[in-house]
Amino acid sequence: MTLLEQSMQNMIEVFHSYVEKDGDGKTLSKKQLKKLLETELPEFLKAQKNPNIVDNIMKDLDQNKDDKLNFEEFVPFVAGLVMACEKCFQKKDKK
Amino acid sequence: MTLLEQSMQNMIEVFHSYVEKDGDGKTLSKKQLKKLLETELPEFLKAQKNPNIVDNIMKDLDQNKDDKLNFEEFVPFVAGLVMACEKCFQKKDKK
Repeated sequence: MTLLEQSMQNMIEVFHSYVEKDGDGKTLSKKQLKKLLETELPEFLKAQKNPNIVDNIMKDLDQNKDDKLNFEEFVPFVAGLVMACEKCFQKKDKK
Repeated sequence: MTLLEQSMQNMIEVFHSYVEKDGDGKTLSKKQLKKLLETELPEFLKAQKNPNIVDNIMKDLDQNKDDKLNFEEFVPFVAGLVMACEKCFQKKDKK
């Protein structure tokens, strides 16, 4: 498996490792999203100043308004973060 | 660094490792995209039956029609692939 394939599989497995503790086995509740962010993206979460950040992320991503996040609703969040990170990466390179 | 953070960084680094061989240091030409797909996503490429697949991917992703892919144009491709892979993953689980 290549590095890109492995990275893609990791994204799927990380999401599912938080989902599996739930009943439906496919979606994250807000509580599970919070746990995922605290554990897997601690630096991102620490940098946020808004105390309602998890609520806001949930609201932004929950396209079908069922108060749960499926994988397709979660991926755009990671995609957005990766794009933001890449910009930081380029800025650092210029220094 | 967590597994999710590492996976995100890998995506950025893989993209840049194909970019760096080019002049502008920020974008992939079609030739570089082809090389990236052949090397990093060989299974995906093998599964495609359309001989114009690289041309078609380039056309689909090149939002600003400059015949190059920047990282922001590339991420939706990976995001789409990850979503498709996750569906396969669920199907396999059910078997």
